[in-house]
Amino acid sequence: MAVGTLATVKSLDPEDLRTIGAQMILANAYHLHLRPGDELVRDFGGVHRFMGWDGPMLTDSGGFQVFSLEGLRTVSEDGVEFRSHIDGSKHVFTPETVMQIERNLGADVIMQFDHVIPGQSEIGASREASERSIRWLARCVTALEKLRAGGPPPKNTILDFPPLPGTIFPLPAPSHPQALFPILQGGIHESLRVEAARTIRDVGDWRGFGIGGLSVGEAKPDMYRILDVVDAELPRDRPRYLMGVGFPEDLVEGVKRGVDLFDCVAPTRMGRNGAAFTRDGRLNIKRAEFRTDPRPLDEACDCSACRRFSRGYIRHLFVSDEILGHRLLSLHNVHFLVRLMRDARAAIRAGTFDAWSRDWLARYHTRPVPSA
Amino acid sequence: MAVGTLATVKSLDPEDLRTIGAQMILANAYHLHLRPGDELVRDFGGVHRFMGWDGPMLTDSGGFQVFSLEGLRTVSEDGVEFRSHIDGSKHVFTPETVMQIERNLGADVIMQFDHVIPGQSEIGASREASERSIRWLARCVTALEKLRAGGPPPKNTILDFPPLPGTIFPLPAPSHPQALFPILQGGIHESLRVEAARTIRDVGDWRGFGIGGLSVGEAKPDMYRILDVVDAELPRDRPRYLMGVGFPEDLVEGVKRGVDLFDCVAPTRMGRNGAAFTRDGRLNIKRAEFRTDPRPLDEACDCSACRRFSRGYIRHLFVSDEILGHRLLSLHNVHFLVRLMRDARAAIRAGTFDAWSRDWLARYHTRPVPSA
Repeated sequence: MAVGTLATVKSLDPEDLRTIGAQMILANAYHLHLRPGDELVRDFGGVHRFMGWDGPMLTDSGGFQVFSLEGLRTVSEDGVEFRSHIDGSKHVFTPETVMQIERNLGADVIMQFDHVIPGQSEIGASREASERSIRWLARCVTALEKLRAGGPPPKNTILDFPPLPGTIFPLPAPSHPQALFPILQGGIHESLRVEAARTIRDVGDWRGFGIGGLSVGEAKPDMYRILDVVDAELPRDRPRYLMGVGFPEDLVEGVKRGVDLFDCVAPTRMGRNGAAFTRDGRLNIKRAEFRTDPRPLDEACDCSACRRFSRGYIRHLFVSDEILGHRLLSLHNVHFLVRLMRDARAAIRAGTFDAWSRDWLARYHTRPVPSA
Repeated sequence: MAVGTLATVKSLDPEDLRTIGAQMILANAYHLHLRPGDELVRDFGGVHRFMGWDGPMLTDSGGFQVFSLEGLRTVSEDGVEFRSHIDGSKHVFTPETVMQIERNLGADVIMQFDHVIPGQSEIGASREASERSIRWLARCVTALEKLRAGGPPPKNTILDFPPLPGTIFPLPAPSHPQALFPILQGGIHESLRVEAARTIRDVGDWRGFGIGGLSVGEAKPDMYRILDVVDAELPRDRPRYLMGVGFPEDLVEGVKRGVDLFDCVAPTRMGRNGAAFTRDGRLNIKRAEFRTDPRPLDEACDCSACRRFSRGYIRHLFVSDEILGHRLLSLHNVHFLVRLMRDARAAIRAGTFDAWSRDWLARYHTRPVPSA
């Protein structure tokens, strides 16, 4: 998934994402609740229509964000009271309020409100967060059922404006109910992960599973170990979503361990910082060596940046602080990940994934990664 | 012309400009000489290929820029010695060095190096600048002939990289020699403008004429008066280019007075500041009233921003400081001006320009312009 936290994938246009072949966009309940407000988004007909994206969307619940507000939040069994990182205003997130927010936003997949803790937490704290997340999952289910029983969301108040001819407005409303994904917690402790996976899979017919609490400070081998454990416990015919991951090598390692869905700010954030993913590792376009380089970012890439622009030109854009540089690298990096996943799917279908992933990782790691 | 000072139209992609129907891009010799260097651009095959634009291009000579470096420059009959606004490095612009730079850049139209002074200068200073500009024009012609006699520009050193299949590289090299446009100076003094126009039109078979030294601080009525005077003196079958102008109303007023070509940073700069041109004047998208507004920026506009996004969404992008907002308003504003000029041409052909321009200006000025 391309990350569009605030209902926009930074520096890209929804049209770019269609061209790239991106399949899904992630937005964030915490951020959209604060700006522009989930009720406003609802009144615009939901987040798809608001941002002009007619493909699948997922909203994260904001659990990760509110628990990151160290010093600005109070946690209880009921939920989290916190102050906005923007203006200090007071808000309360509970499973119930978050379901209301995500329903207002109207994404196709909505994540439960969960308790997120640092990756290296010891077993006591991890157990507490995991068990609380499971209790909160039950409250999310109840809250969502209550909201659905209340009928469709309140009438959109500001969408009586007639669509312009030839426009994509109005987007069709999603015809399916929103799918709620549970989130597995349990830190880096195998027993907790097994327990969480078994408890959750047995209490509902989930359309998919979120794997949370990884890529939050723990070592990579710990993440891989936990993914192996979780892989063995979850049904194989439902997508697993590894939250907040990741870099190209993480995607390959994740797919190897049964993960289907990822999200990460890396392609656009690194793109804005001048780093491009290539088959041979990362490339920092600001380096002087690229000044006279007529080659595209990645000679094997067919994205619209690589088909048109040289490294020398893109370096010039970065050195001159020109926005087009951010856009071109973001476009290239998102394209790179979309294509990587397409190649992984093809290798799985062809029964050659093991060899493919081994070769891919070997080549990617061959070149020492220049810091971006 | 869309303004692409540093070989990029800020926040837009050359592809956007093609879609909009923009006919020409302006780049700047001063800025490209400093960053990334005109010799580097030459080695990339010229500015068209460097930035991936296969339509017409014009480079301004940098006269306006170096004369703006108050305190950092010394002017003599030979030229201008100045320090870079970026790193303080020393440079000398003369008619000869500027012709070399513009030849390296390789635009289709190149502007002479001229002496630019403030718009309200009295007649003595204006005469001096105008007469010097005419002497410098003669030196530009001689320098350009000498460069042409020396054959094509030195071999491109870094373009032996083979084009990727399906790419726009290599762009065809322009098959025509670059057209040198003289620049008329003379400030707001009619006698000087008449003298400059007559002298210049009689000494060469120019493919077009630049009208400089306007929109540099003088009052609008002064600009219109000078345009009327110049209009009467220049051949009607050659394009007149009013440099650095302007806003939508200036374009209509200019066309009324025989101007064919304009450039201005306004559409992209104002776009980045949140101001959109509409048929009813300017609109500041950041205003609270647009928070819930489902309408496009301009209900009569068919640009790709207006076909897809609401004022409410674009306001959200600006309030959240999201780059896509800059891009959408820049796109809309450039489209607005391109369409305005298309409408003006249609009205001229239909013989209805007077009525069309009167109605257009009346409607545009009806609404008080909110400050952007």
